[in-house]
Amino acid sequence: MSGFNDVKALLFDVFGTVVDWRSSVIHELETFGTEKGIERDWTGFTDKWRASYQPAMEEVRSGRSAWTILDELHRETLIRLLDEFSISGLSKAEIDHLNRAWHRLLPWPDSVEGLQRLKSKFIIGTQSNGNIALMVNLAKHSNLAWDVILGAETARAYKPLPESYLRNVALLGLEPGECMLVAAHNDDLAAATALGLRSAFVLRPTEYGPDQSKDLQAEEGWDIVAKNLIEVADELGC
Amino acid sequence: MSGFNDVKALLFDVFGTVVDWRSSVIHELETFGTEKGIERDWTGFTDKWRASYQPAMEEVRSGRSAWTILDELHRETLIRLLDEFSISGLSKAEIDHLNRAWHRLLPWPDSVEGLQRLKSKFIIGTQSNGNIALMVNLAKHSNLAWDVILGAETARAYKPLPESYLRNVALLGLEPGECMLVAAHNDDLAAATALGLRSAFVLRPTEYGPDQSKDLQAEEGWDIVAKNLIEVADELGC
Repeated sequence: MSGFNDVKALLFDVFGTVVDWRSSVIHELETFGTEKGIERDWTGFTDKWRASYQPAMEEVRSGRSAWTILDELHRETLIRLLDEFSISGLSKAEIDHLNRAWHRLLPWPDSVEGLQRLKSKFIIGTQSNGNIALMVNLAKHSNLAWDVILGAETARAYKPLPESYLRNVALLGLEPGECMLVAAHNDDLAAATALGLRSAFVLRPTEYGPDQSKDLQAEEGWDIVAKNLIEVADELGC
Repeated sequence: MSGFNDVKALLFDVFGTVVDWRSSVIHELETFGTEKGIERDWTGFTDKWRASYQPAMEEVRSGRSAWTILDELHRETLIRLLDEFSISGLSKAEIDHLNRAWHRLLPWPDSVEGLQRLKSKFIIGTQSNGNIALMVNLAKHSNLAWDVILGAETARAYKPLPESYLRNVALLGLEPGECMLVAAHNDDLAAATALGLRSAFVLRPTEYGPDQSKDLQAEEGWDIVAKNLIEVADELGC
């Protein structure tokens, strides 16, 4: 357990762990509001958008909805919130642009350097509920040097379902113990380690803003606990 | 048709187009032979291994066999050829190592630089019949800077079936006309352009050795015809 010699691939949660989705989406919506002359509570809009994330995926996980990629789930929520916030008359192109705010999220200050260092020694890949197009565009936008884009769409299952992790491990031709999940969320790490993956917890205490109440500390004995991805690289000798 | 402003992603055939599979596999087999004290016609072994590539995939394409990744098809052929060449007594680890010769193919001299340049302006991804693990390991081994690993395994269909191209285009959230296939094989480009993809032909006249008889010239009016990936980058203004 102590050494990491068997680890060949690092799989990353992305939203919150690698990129600061909340500040980025708020900024995108504020820019949109300024350009359109619309004043709203864009922070509240953002938090409600994200709050629909788990319920929307749960429809798919439960089997009540057919497989649906995250871009589409985001869009369904966006349409509903635009109505709730009394914003009307947007063109399809404007709605698409807003929805693709999730393709333009900015990394935490340590992410680009941390990933570059980790890439020198390990396969680094996404293990995100975001779909492939979202992850690829995000990587191009924010210079995230992934070796491989994996996640819900390649597994056809949303985290934390076991197959969402295990199918991606198998796609790499690896065993669970040869993969380490890097995440800012204790529940994600708990699901992965139950299947035999290794674990690195990254503290992101402002992911949900200044009043964040969860994931402020490691809740189990994860293999690595770090303040950022540069510390993860230090721990792994990169 | 003349401009390339609509092109957002370049999808690459890999075996032969980006890496020199034949010289690489011959070298791997020769090294194995020297270490084990076994003398055989390793060039003939390599050519027979590759000659089984299309028939093996055809079993899957036709539906006679269930979906099987290329690593497994390679392995089935390898086992048969070891018997044919009267090589016996290898351990499972030795057979695995030989089979993974395809994970250690070396790039053509222009490939690493060409891909790096193309990456600055386009999404660059694999569109290979090789499986994900093979493509990821190959990229790590030979410094191929892919943004995304796509191909037969993400499409669950082998080229040149239409869905092998179209499903990967859809995974990127793009239209066929926003993607360009880069390949050294006229039949691959013909299949892709029939679906609306753009085309770049790369001349690799020694892929099959000094006596290569096919793909020595562009057989249709492909959008780009180039001697190597650096010329493709030149043509695309990268």
